[in-house]
Amino acid sequence: MSFCEEIENESALQREAMANHPFVRGIGDGTLPLDRFRHFITQDYVYVVDFARCLALGVAKAPDLETMGWFARAVDYILNTEMDLHRSYCAGFGITEADLDATKHAPTTYSYTSYLLRVAHQGSFGELVASLLPCIWGYWQVGKRLADQGEPENAPGYAKWIRMYAASEFQAVAEEARSICDRVASTAGPAEIAAMKEAYITCTRYEQAFWEMGWTLQDWPV
Amino acid sequence: MSFCEEIENESALQREAMANHPFVRGIGDGTLPLDRFRHFITQDYVYVVDFARCLALGVAKAPDLETMGWFARAVDYILNTEMDLHRSYCAGFGITEADLDATKHAPTTYSYTSYLLRVAHQGSFGELVASLLPCIWGYWQVGKRLADQGEPENAPGYAKWIRMYAASEFQAVAEEARSICDRVASTAGPAEIAAMKEAYITCTRYEQAFWEMGWTLQDWPV
Amino acid sequence: MSFCEEIENESALQREAMANHPFVRGIGDGTLPLDRFRHFITQDYVYVVDFARCLALGVAKAPDLETMGWFARAVDYILNTEMDLHRSYCAGFGITEADLDATKHAPTTYSYTSYLLRVAHQGSFGELVASLLPCIWGYWQVGKRLADQGEPENAPGYAKWIRMYAASEFQAVAEEARSICDRVASTAGPAEIAAMKEAYITCTRYEQAFWEMGWTLQDWPV
Amino acid sequence: MSFCEEIENESALQREAMANHPFVRGIGDGTLPLDRFRHFITQDYVYVVDFARCLALGVAKAPDLETMGWFARAVDYILNTEMDLHRSYCAGFGITEADLDATKHAPTTYSYTSYLLRVAHQGSFGELVASLLPCIWGYWQVGKRLADQGEPENAPGYAKWIRMYAASEFQAVAEEARSICDRVASTAGPAEIAAMKEAYITCTRYEQAFWEMGWTLQDWPV
Repeated sequence: MSFCEEIENESALQREAMANHPFVRGIGDGTLPLDRFRHFITQDYVYVVDFARCLALGVAKAPDLETMGWFARAVDYILNTEMDLHRSYCAGFGITEADLDATKHAPTTYSYTSYLLRVAHQGSFGELVASLLPCIWGYWQVGKRLADQGEPENAPGYAKWIRMYAASEFQAVAEEARSICDRVASTAGPAEIAAMKEAYITCTRYEQAFWEMGWTLQDWPV
Repeated sequence: MSFCEEIENESALQREAMANHPFVRGIGDGTLPLDRFRHFITQDYVYVVDFARCLALGVAKAPDLETMGWFARAVDYILNTEMDLHRSYCAGFGITEADLDATKHAPTTYSYTSYLLRVAHQGSFGELVASLLPCIWGYWQVGKRLADQGEPENAPGYAKWIRMYAASEFQAVAEEARSICDRVASTAGPAEIAAMKEAYITCTRYEQAFWEMGWTLQDWPV
Repeated sequence: MSFCEEIENESALQREAMANHPFVRGIGDGTLPLDRFRHFITQDYVYVVDFARCLALGVAKAPDLETMGWFARAVDYILNTEMDLHRSYCAGFGITEADLDATKHAPTTYSYTSYLLRVAHQGSFGELVASLLPCIWGYWQVGKRLADQGEPENAPGYAKWIRMYAASEFQAVAEEARSICDRVASTAGPAEIAAMKEAYITCTRYEQAFWEMGWTLQDWPV
Repeated sequence: MSFCEEIENESALQREAMANHPFVRGIGDGTLPLDRFRHFITQDYVYVVDFARCLALGVAKAPDLETMGWFARAVDYILNTEMDLHRSYCAGFGITEADLDATKHAPTTYSYTSYLLRVAHQGSFGELVASLLPCIWGYWQVGKRLADQGEPENAPGYAKWIRMYAASEFQAVAEEARSICDRVASTAGPAEIAAMKEAYITCTRYEQAFWEMGWTLQDWPV
């Protein structure tokens, strides 16, 4: 059993809670109120900026040229291509570029990205990779599950979101990330393996909290 | 007006919400249920370990020998003296050393310490100092305010907690931290000043969230 | 006077020593012994890998999306395009890919890249940018100066090297890096400005030491 | 065979070159010209400041409370006790506090401390510990060897230096550092073990270069 299969087994409860959140089900059947999705998607924009910083720290810490190159491609794609797609996708929901630029981190967005950056700076490369998987692999799984049950009717924006993450191109990226994680784990000692699992489970929990943030329109109390 | 006076003015709302949380009032009048305090104090133990890591990063990033020496004294005191006091204080609430060692980060503890470590690793020394103040200065203010209104009757453990943070020794440390922050701010440009304010306000909000974590016995959903 | 003009003035001696090293003159007139160039160019390969890590840390620390995007493009270009060019250019000197992969850091290569990484991890974004300029801007200046005096005869490999760094595409990149540095400096306080100057001058000195490493076929004594 | 015994065997050549440098022999027999020792001891002062930053990063990255506490004690001792001793020891050689404060990093001092800080920021905790050993353990070995051959006559300053590092208190610290390194290595995977060895050998080489810096009164060419 590969390392990734192992942590997926060990985090089955957390992964199920993440993948089965009412927010996710609301995207799947098209019933999610628009304001909740708008809150989520603007926070997702803020999240992706910090996520790009973590990918960059992956370049800085990767053990070999090939892995450095993979992370470099990913960080360039996110910042110089995907952010544009994100902006135009948001425009379809009436969210302007000025709105996006003015968005501040909601509590969970700050917490999750801070955890990722803490691991990226302070942990090993193995922990860094493990911390990124719940987002990458998790979104693919959510996309795939929702696509398999059929696109929501009368919710073209949500259908587009599902197609984006169910796409085979995205699956390929997720599988590459997964195999980098397995490769690193294969030469890691027991202390690093334990730290990688902690990072993986914690980020799966933050993924669930991120849906919850959208669902509750979470903001700072003051 | 010094930098610290300025950010304290600008964060008056957040500081008031932090200092006036029902959890704090419950310590002050002795009515706080014991299980909530126990949850808080074990999480505080976990918090202090990460806080010590941030003080250590302060040594690594401080601009001069004197400031390095101040942070070195602080990190040595916390790890080699205060942690022992913390353990014996916890024993008074029936919390054993084994309990403390087995404690995992609750969501807000992970989020707050990760934010501190993100700033400590990624930000400037000025941002690092500003991020530590809401804890140091804030606890002194809470301690002072509760001491001034008179110790709670029939709650000797809470009274001890109040005396600890209202103590003049603790005040001295808080004032030194504050003056380091003012000194750094005096040679910082506008970009760094803005980042320092963001760190200060965000940590004030996390302080409030930390009381809320104790108040609600917060844990991960799964 | 912009910040970059200012530090260029202040480091005139170091910059002249760097740009006028016998190694550089030997490339310019084609008289540089081949074994010295081979030593330099294999060490340069090792250097570029670490330089890419610094560019990645630039993404992690950049203050805005546009600057993050610039660094992300640069790191992707270096790792996924330029390294291939470097390998095929080296092949022209009889240096195989296996040779490059087996190369260890010579003392100056380790020292210079460690200084860059120290600054990138520990310093501000402004210091990071200032530390990268002596390489980027310095190589363009060397390329330009040698191109202006006419390509060396009977040394097509050296002529190609000169054209590479005298190219207008490379000039454009160097000017962008320079203007990012000026932009950061414009909002930096005096403490950060001093640190940026220290990083710039130190790296100019390491640039000179790097030519010297090639010139003396430098290696560890044992 | 413990990890430390293993790397000591593998680096026998580098360790012998380090421990047997003419600079070291000159301290041992009292013949080292005073200006060379003065250059060394002022650079050593600059070195120790950066070394303290690495110990602080050891607190930030240590895997458990006990090890964090050890590094915290060490960093506090160095900054708040040893630096004073260093200053008064230097006074005996006519070097004033103002001289020390005005000292700039010589090339090898910058290179060695930058390598240490690169490893401390970018590497694992195991690499960090391994990188500090050649200094700690190496100085104890040099002190012991010179003490065993008898103190130099007519060179009380050098005799004092030898006693300082041959002292049983310093030996105890060196042995604790060594056993922390062995403990970390015992749960490290092969990739981390290889990186730890690289850090150890490279720092042994930088130790030798540091004596050479004193011996040659090394400074930047311009």
